[in-house]
Amino acid sequence: MPQTIDTLISARWIVPIEPAGVCLKQHSLAIDKGRIVAILPTAEAPASYLARERVDLGSHVLMPGLINLHSHAAMSLLRGLADDLPLMDWLNHHIWPAESRLVRDEFVYEGTLLALAEMLRGGVTCVNDMYFYPGATARALLTAKMRGMIGLTVLEFPTHYASDAADYLHKGLSTRDEFNGEPLLGFTLAPHAPYTISDQTFGKVVTLSEELELPIHVHLHESQQEIIDSLKDYHVRPLARLKALGLLSPNLIGVHCVHLTTDEIHWLAQHGCHVAHNPTSNMKLASGIAPVSALLEAGVNVGIGTDSAASNNRLDMLAEIRMTALLAKAATLQAQTVPAHQALAMATLHGAKALGLDHLIGSLLPGKAADLCAIRLDDLETAPCFDPISHLVYAAGREHVTDVWVAGRRLLQNRELTTLNAAQLVARARAWRDKVRS
Amino acid sequence: MPQTIDTLISARWIVPIEPAGVCLKQHSLAIDKGRIVAILPTAEAPASYLARERVDLGSHVLMPGLINLHSHAAMSLLRGLADDLPLMDWLNHHIWPAESRLVRDEFVYEGTLLALAEMLRGGVTCVNDMYFYPGATARALLTAKMRGMIGLTVLEFPTHYASDAADYLHKGLSTRDEFNGEPLLGFTLAPHAPYTISDQTFGKVVTLSEELELPIHVHLHESQQEIIDSLKDYHVRPLARLKALGLLSPNLIGVHCVHLTTDEIHWLAQHGCHVAHNPTSNMKLASGIAPVSALLEAGVNVGIGTDSAASNNRLDMLAEIRMTALLAKAATLQAQTVPAHQALAMATLHGAKALGLDHLIGSLLPGKAADLCAIRLDDLETAPCFDPISHLVYAAGREHVTDVWVAGRRLLQNRELTTLNAAQLVARARAWRDKVRS
Repeated sequence: MPQTIDTLISARWIVPIEPAGVCLKQHSLAIDKGRIVAILPTAEAPASYLARERVDLGSHVLMPGLINLHSHAAMSLLRGLADDLPLMDWLNHHIWPAESRLVRDEFVYEGTLLALAEMLRGGVTCVNDMYFYPGATARALLTAKMRGMIGLTVLEFPTHYASDAADYLHKGLSTRDEFNGEPLLGFTLAPHAPYTISDQTFGKVVTLSEELELPIHVHLHESQQEIIDSLKDYHVRPLARLKALGLLSPNLIGVHCVHLTTDEIHWLAQHGCHVAHNPTSNMKLASGIAPVSALLEAGVNVGIGTDSAASNNRLDMLAEIRMTALLAKAATLQAQTVPAHQALAMATLHGAKALGLDHLIGSLLPGKAADLCAIRLDDLETAPCFDPISHLVYAAGREHVTDVWVAGRRLLQNRELTTLNAAQLVARARAWRDKVRS
Repeated sequence: MPQTIDTLISARWIVPIEPAGVCLKQHSLAIDKGRIVAILPTAEAPASYLARERVDLGSHVLMPGLINLHSHAAMSLLRGLADDLPLMDWLNHHIWPAESRLVRDEFVYEGTLLALAEMLRGGVTCVNDMYFYPGATARALLTAKMRGMIGLTVLEFPTHYASDAADYLHKGLSTRDEFNGEPLLGFTLAPHAPYTISDQTFGKVVTLSEELELPIHVHLHESQQEIIDSLKDYHVRPLARLKALGLLSPNLIGVHCVHLTTDEIHWLAQHGCHVAHNPTSNMKLASGIAPVSALLEAGVNVGIGTDSAASNNRLDMLAEIRMTALLAKAATLQAQTVPAHQALAMATLHGAKALGLDHLIGSLLPGKAADLCAIRLDDLETAPCFDPISHLVYAAGREHVTDVWVAGRRLLQNRELTTLNAAQLVARARAWRDKVRS
C-alpha cells in the first residue's frame, strides 16, 4: 500500500552531496510536511508513494539548495555604486557615506527582498547575513519564505541604527526575542571585524555566544592592512588576539581569512572554526587569494559566500562555486585542487556545518528539510553533457536554475518567483537609486 | 531631407569603446549596407535618417560585438569530457585520444556550429579559431554568417587531417584559396606551439606570414613545463627561440603568455606583438596567472579569449571579461588594475587590433562594420543601475545578451538565433556525446 505524501519530484539526475561525488540517474525525491522522506529510483516510486503533487524534471539535476555563507543582502541597492577602488577608499568615500545617509529599516527590508529574489533565482535557499536593522532582514526572509541566519551586527561606532556596542547588542537580542520560534530563521552574533570591535565587546560576544548557543559571524584577515593595523594597535595579528579572547571555537565563522600563516591555519583547524570563502569579493577588492586548499587539507570546514552586491557585484552562488574551484587551481598550480564535487559540497553541506544546521540542510538525506534547487542541463550552453557534476560547476549558469524549494515550499517555479514580485522589486530598486544619487 | 538607410537602432545607452570609457545616453546608431553611418542623439535621428527598419532597445546597452581572440570552437563537443586534471594528463589521456578517434570534417563542422551558436548568444561577433579541418570551420562560419579568423593549424606529427608540417601548410593554404574573397572570413597561420613545432617549420611560417600578410596565431608560454622542456631541448626559453627565428612582430598573436620575465614582456612590447589572454582556461588547467597588468603597462596589446569549451567549459566572453578584471586585481593586489572600461576594450578593440581588423571592427565608429551586441540591464540581477559600464563587466551575464548583428545582419533577435537552430544543435551534440563515449 503506497504511502501518501505531499510531493514527489522525479529528476534526470539527483546529486545528494552525501555520499560525496555521487550522481544518481532517474531518481525521485519524496517530500512530506517539508521534509525529505526518501530518495529512490523513479521506476520504484509508484509502488511506495502516492503524491498529492508530482514534479517532473526530465533534463535537470536536483540537488540541495545552495547556502550563501556570507552576505550583506540589503547592500544590493548599492550594486555597482563604485568599483575598481581599494577597500578603504571604497568604504570611506562611497559605501559608508551612502549607508550613513540612507540605511534605515525600509532600506534594509527592500534591499534584502531584492537580494533574496536574486539569490532564489540562482538556487540559494539559505543565507547567512550581516547588516543593520536585523528585524527588517527577518521580515524580508519571512516575506520571501526563505531560510536565513541573521547576524546581530555589533560595532563600536554609532550609526542611525544604534549608538554603541551595548546598544547594538541590546537591539540585536531584542530582535532575536521578537522572531524566536520562526522555523526558517536563526541568528548569529556578528561583531563586524577585529578593527572595529574592542576587546571588551569581543568578551561580551563570547559570553553571549556560549549562553545563548549562537554562532559568531565575523570578518577576519580580509586585507593585509587589517593585519598591519592590528600589529600596531594590539602588537599581535587579529587571529592571535581573538584566540587570546577565547573566540576560537566551533561557534566561529571567520569570513574571508585571506591572509593566514601556517600556524593560524592550524589554530582554525584545532579549534573547529569555520571559514566563509568569498572569492569574487576578495578579487574585486584586491584583498588577495585565500589559502583554501591549505585550509581544506588542514581539516578546516570551508563554506562559500557571495559577500554583498556592492563588492561582487552579483549574489550568484554558482559563479562563486566555479570561482572557488578555478581560483584554488590557479593559486596552487594543481588542477586537481578543489574538484567539482568538492566545490559543490562547500556551497551546501560545508555551509550547513558552519551554521550548525547540517542536521537539517546541506544534503539530501531522509529527515532533512526539503531545501532544494533544480538546474536544467539541456540548454545549448550545457551541450553535450558527459558529467552533470562537472557541468554544475564549470558550464551551467544561474540562468539554468529553474526551481527552488525551501522546507518543501516551491519558491521558484520554472524561473518565476512565487513569493516575490520581480517587476516591483526592480521598480523599487530604481527609486532607491535615485535617492542614493541625490 | 533625411537620408534613407537600412537600420536605425535606438538604445538607452551606447558604449562605443572609442573614445575610451564613454557611455552615451539615448543615442541611436545608423546602419547602411552593413556599415555604421553615424551615432547621434535619438532625438536628432528622425531629422537625419529615414530607416527601413527601426529597432528600439529601451533598456539596453548597445556596444561593439565581442571578439573571442582564442578558441578551438569544434571542441565544444568535448565540453566537460574530463576536468580537474593537469594539462598533460588531460591532453594525453583524454582530449588527444578522443580527437584522434573522432575529429574529421563533420566533427569540426558540427562542433563549430554549436560553439558559434553559444558565442552568438553571448554577444560574440568574431572568433579567432585554431583547429583541424579549417575548411569545415569556414563552412560553419558561413552557415552562421558570423565573422571569423580561421587558423591554418600546423603540427609536426600526423593526424587524420594531415601527415606532416608541409602537408598541414599545404592543406591550410588550399583552404585559404578556396574561401578567399569571403568578406566575413580571414586566415591566420597557426603553428600549434613551440613544443610541437620545429625551427624549420617556424621558419616557413615566418616566410609565408610575410609573403601572404597573415597573422601568426601560436600558443606561447602556457605552462611552466613548456619552459622547462624548451630549456632542456633548445637551451633557451620558447620566446627567446621564437625571437631568434624572427617570429616576433606585429603579426604575432601569442596565446596565454602566462609565464614571462620582465625582459620577455619588453620584447613583446618592442616588437608590437599581441597577447590573447584566456584567464579561465589558465586557471582551470592550473597553468597560472598571466601578468596582464605588466603587459598593459609595457604597452603590449592584450585581447581576451575563451580557449575551448573543453578547458573552460564555456565560450562566455562576458565571463572572461569579468575574470580578466578580477584576476588582475587579485594578482596585483591593486583594485584599480584593469577597471571595467579597460576590460571591455580588451574584449573588443584590442582583439580587433591583434587580428589586424581594427579598421573594420572593435569600436563603433562611422565607416566600421555594424558588428554589434545589445545587453539588457533591466533585469533583477542588474538592478539598480548606477553605471552601465560597471554592470556590463561585473553584474550582467550572457543571459542578458538579447541581440547581435554582424555586418548589419541580425544573427540574434530577442535571444533567438536567426541563422542556426538551437534544438537541432543540442540533438547533434547528444549524438556526438554517444560517439565520444563509445
